[in-house]
Amino acid sequence: QLQAIVRGGDGSSLSREEFRQAVVNTLERRLFYIPSFKIYRGVAGLYDYGPPGCAVKANVLSFWRQHFVLEENMLEVDCPCVTPEIVLKASGHVDKFTDLMVKDEKTGTCYRADHLLKDFCNEKLQKDLTLSAEKAAEFKHVLATLDDLSADELGAKIKEYGIVAPDTKNPLSDPYPFNLMFQTSIGPSGLLRGFMRPETAQGIFVNFKDLYYYNGNRLPFAAAQIGQAFRNEISPRQGLLRVREFTLAEIEHFVDPEDKSHPKFQEVADLEFLMFPREQQMSGQSATKMCLGEAVSKGTVNNETLGYFIGRVYLFLTHLGIDKERLRFRQHLANEMAHYAADCWDAEIECSYGWIECVGIADRSAYDLRAHTEKSGVALVAAEKFTQPREVEKLVITPNKKELGQAFSRSQKNVVEALEAMTEEEAMKMKAALESKGADEFLVCTLGETVTIKASMVKISKEKKKEHQRVFTPSVIEPSFGIGRIIYCLYEHSFYRRGKNKEEQLNVFRFPPLVAPIKCTVFPLIQKPEYEAVAQRISKLLTAAGVSHIIDMSGNTIGKRYARTDELGVPFAITADSESDVTIRERDSKDQVRISVDEVALVVKGLTDGQRTWADIWAAYPHHSSASADDE
Amino acid sequence: QLQAIVRGGDGSSLSREEFRQAVVNTLERRLFYIPSFKIYRGVAGLYDYGPPGCAVKANVLSFWRQHFVLEENMLEVDCPCVTPEIVLKASGHVDKFTDLMVKDEKTGTCYRADHLLKDFCNEKLQKDLTLSAEKAAEFKHVLATLDDLSADELGAKIKEYGIVAPDTKNPLSDPYPFNLMFQTSIGPSGLLRGFMRPETAQGIFVNFKDLYYYNGNRLPFAAAQIGQAFRNEISPRQGLLRVREFTLAEIEHFVDPEDKSHPKFQEVADLEFLMFPREQQMSGQSATKMCLGEAVSKGTVNNETLGYFIGRVYLFLTHLGIDKERLRFRQHLANEMAHYAADCWDAEIECSYGWIECVGIADRSAYDLRAHTEKSGVALVAAEKFTQPREVEKLVITPNKKELGQAFSRSQKNVVEALEAMTEEEAMKMKAALESKGADEFLVCTLGETVTIKASMVKISKEKKKEHQRVFTPSVIEPSFGIGRIIYCLYEHSFYRRGKNKEEQLNVFRFPPLVAPIKCTVFPLIQKPEYEAVAQRISKLLTAAGVSHIIDMSGNTIGKRYARTDELGVPFAITADSESDVTIRERDSKDQVRISVDEVALVVKGLTDGQRTWADIWAAYPHHSSASADDE
Repeated sequence: QLQAIVRGGDGSSLSREEFRQAVVNTLERRLFYIPSFKIYRGVAGLYDYGPPGCAVKANVLSFWRQHFVLEENMLEVDCPCVTPEIVLKASGHVDKFTDLMVKDEKTGTCYRADHLLKDFCNEKLQKDLTLSAEKAAEFKHVLATLDDLSADELGAKIKEYGIVAPDTKNPLSDPYPFNLMFQTSIGPSGLLRGFMRPETAQGIFVNFKDLYYYNGNRLPFAAAQIGQAFRNEISPRQGLLRVREFTLAEIEHFVDPEDKSHPKFQEVADLEFLMFPREQQMSGQSATKMCLGEAVSKGTVNNETLGYFIGRVYLFLTHLGIDKERLRFRQHLANEMAHYAADCWDAEIECSYGWIECVGIADRSAYDLRAHTEKSGVALVAAEKFTQPREVEKLVITPNKKELGQAFSRSQKNVVEALEAMTEEEAMKMKAALESKGADEFLVCTLGETVTIKASMVKISKEKKKEHQRVFTPSVIEPSFGIGRIIYCLYEHSFYRRGKNKEEQLNVFRFPPLVAPIKCTVFPLIQKPEYEAVAQRISKLLTAAGVSHIIDMSGNTIGKRYARTDELGVPFAITADSESDVTIRERDSKDQVRISVDEVALVVKGLTDGQRTWADIWAAYPHHSSASADDE
Repeated sequence: QLQAIVRGGDGSSLSREEFRQAVVNTLERRLFYIPSFKIYRGVAGLYDYGPPGCAVKANVLSFWRQHFVLEENMLEVDCPCVTPEIVLKASGHVDKFTDLMVKDEKTGTCYRADHLLKDFCNEKLQKDLTLSAEKAAEFKHVLATLDDLSADELGAKIKEYGIVAPDTKNPLSDPYPFNLMFQTSIGPSGLLRGFMRPETAQGIFVNFKDLYYYNGNRLPFAAAQIGQAFRNEISPRQGLLRVREFTLAEIEHFVDPEDKSHPKFQEVADLEFLMFPREQQMSGQSATKMCLGEAVSKGTVNNETLGYFIGRVYLFLTHLGIDKERLRFRQHLANEMAHYAADCWDAEIECSYGWIECVGIADRSAYDLRAHTEKSGVALVAAEKFTQPREVEKLVITPNKKELGQAFSRSQKNVVEALEAMTEEEAMKMKAALESKGADEFLVCTLGETVTIKASMVKISKEKKKEHQRVFTPSVIEPSFGIGRIIYCLYEHSFYRRGKNKEEQLNVFRFPPLVAPIKCTVFPLIQKPEYEAVAQRISKLLTAAGVSHIIDMSGNTIGKRYARTDELGVPFAITADSESDVTIRERDSKDQVRISVDEVALVVKGLTDGQRTWADIWAAYPHHSSASADDE
């Protein structure tokens, strides 16, 4: 499929690696991006966006704001990157945001343990012709379960396979967790530990109370944030896809857990696109086109709100120019999801590196708000006010902590939590058992064992109460966008080559005007003062209309000048070849129309604003045929 | 002056502190900003922008891009915040980006030494009625020269005045430098030291070579960057003005040092505004209105390019809504400027904290590019190609490093640099002296002493060469914008109160539509299905037109709903009170016109795009008089 995309005008095609190399060469040469601090030999995993890349990024973010924040009336916030430890302790990042690392025992060079094992298995599968079917199956199984392996299991595999440091062949240390957050300290004393945030979401969660109030104490509402996030990767790979600093755009949609319907779901219900539910993955099938409305009604997607965001993400990505045939929504397998998550789908985009997770859309239930409520002591909750007070029968479970402490000492906390977490049915069953037998066997999941609960250890009752409101922790549905990854995939999906033969291939990015870094090039047909004056005049009109453009006064042939801007993905080029009329050329069709100097800036503005299409213009204005211009 | 601004409808007025409190209360209550991590009791110097603040910031940055990047065809880049040590070593930040700190000797609490001395002097001057004229003059002198004091001098003053820790009255340590950069380490080994960038400029300088190439190897050109910067302040003060993380927008304009003219200077030459040249500051005068063209032609401003940016900054700030009577351009005094700077002007805005530096506009000469050239070994230079090769006589100074080393040991480097830096005149004089007397006395400024140079220590000659180009290090003119400071000053300049009497004062932000966080409120006159349907329809039309708005369906009185949006600075409110026509109300005049439902969204779009003014609308549509609406 990829190869079809890059087939040149002469029918030649490129391999996956050749294709990537062609894209990356063009991107680096035209400064879409630059390895950061290049004159100092750079730092792995850090990249600059050069002028066209920076413009593409600004366009993507601006469309994101329009498509999500403005259209959905989201509350956008902007929080600092520097974050005190307590916040990330509550969120779990201080303890759990780690990758397993091994060290070269002699040089101290660090590697990601799973990368080494993965590379080893892949190498064996691809190159070892003597591999038995049994061994091959084993390596495939290791690859499939790589993310689930504990430090000990990974270490055992590394030992078993005799994996050594790739550069030196030295032995490796046992794997141990390395926290991926950049650490720093805040203030002059050195006592307040801080981190550079690994995601923007926490800044929203800690502000829930204020945002809920801002929204008139009403649910649902969404908050959004665009900003830098940081992950101190052990060994960054895959160019722009795995970097140490990146821009995230995140939405936290807060919703009543008892009502996850969405008023605008019908607007996306008819969309059809590639979906890859859990069952299909487990049974070895591939992604298939499904109707979003059906996926939700069948329960494949957990709820309407989650479904609505999947649809909106689909529209967002395809509007940018992502090829809908190489975009799929993959549901997380049970073992991939955090224990608290209700459902999770990744928008994956296929590029030369394979299927890449670019947007995660997760129903995180009440996890984050509960974690911060517990740590901060500030209740991050919402309330549904009843018009009439309601009489409710409430289950009240009161563990006797002292007795439980004496009986279970260190496990007391787990037992208490498990008792409090019982459903009404479980609790009533226990109550009956305690009353009849004086004790009950009780499975504490977090301990993985069954304990004996005596009647004196817990009081279970039902009490009648008048309630004026229902207080609850909202669920959070979180679409989280890796902007750099989306942009890189967009580059690959937009890139193609054309030309007369294999030697004379020209590079083109077929960016839609929305994304194009520069909307228009202006140049005089030849270096002649009258034409140059017209070009300057058009440039001023474009500036006044707010259309980003470049003016090319060089003496290069038209063909060369077209080629130079095609390579930047500039959709329109204006050639000044008279003082009254000029031509506009469209990048991909190379079609040209003639148009008056006074009108041209507004026509280009209409085209780049999305008010008019090239087809409209082609229908409305006289065509200009100079088939040879591009070849000059 | 400030007081006049906040005079209420009843003629009452507020003190500076009362005014600030009124602004800050409104800002915090309406979530323009929020102390970060509030539920964890916050961290000094870190703030979140809440929804309206975030929208104001996005609007300011978007206008900055339009006004500078787009209109001047600047090359925008986007570099990481995480920066390896070597870059900031070259720029001087590792060694010199410090403040002097003292510690409470018992508790270890840290203070900025200059803050303590400043507070002490101010307190004496304001509250000590027995102060002699002589002592008063001394304190004033200390305040005036505070920034020039060395660690020793500061320490001596603190001892002399018996200044102790403000909270505990404990004795203080001697002052010592504290580096203001947040430090971290990059990668898993812990061996690569990094910092969070203290400014965005360095990311541009290190990319000079690529950017110059991107610009077709032509000067002048400007690169620009918007991004986060970090300063680990010892004790943040003054709310949003001195924070630990902030957004900078910086421009680095690269220019031939021999030609700092600017082709568009005439476009700003006639501007007149408050300027405060060095001489006027020294002679105790205040800022006066000057014509920019004259300031440049008289040499008050060093060159046209610097002048051009001063003019463009003036236009930028006043367009945002900064009061031009409380905006001045202050030239740095000789002792404030870095030794390499050719000239430097700060755009200072007056707010309740005094005159605040919000934009620095500095001619930094070739300093930064030279520093990175030296450290990286990559020549960051430009070349002017001659159409005809030129024969030039070049001064060649060749110090004999070995002999100089033997003669001056540790000072060798200073002597070598001073010799190489000689002007042609100085060098020829030395050559003559060495030839006639065999030695010459030579002042080495960086050592502060005169040394004897013997004939064998340096070879001075003039050589004839054919040159095809002139290679030089460009000068850099740097306008650097503190976005958060500009926004805070804008809040103060936009704030006013109105009402019938002192008790019933309503807060208003008079933001221009360009800046306003929300452009329009829509609400039904009363809760009636027909009106609500109209309001919903208008909301959809506004969304389609890309106008950010809120819809208020609450049952509050019109007056209350107006007041709520006035406090957010929403410039227009649409009241749906029929199915065909509606009213638009302008925030500051409270004037209303009637307009058809179909037309209203485009009219508001025109108003917020700046295509039409309220005066245009007022002239074109029937007026609606319901003087009482606002008072309901």
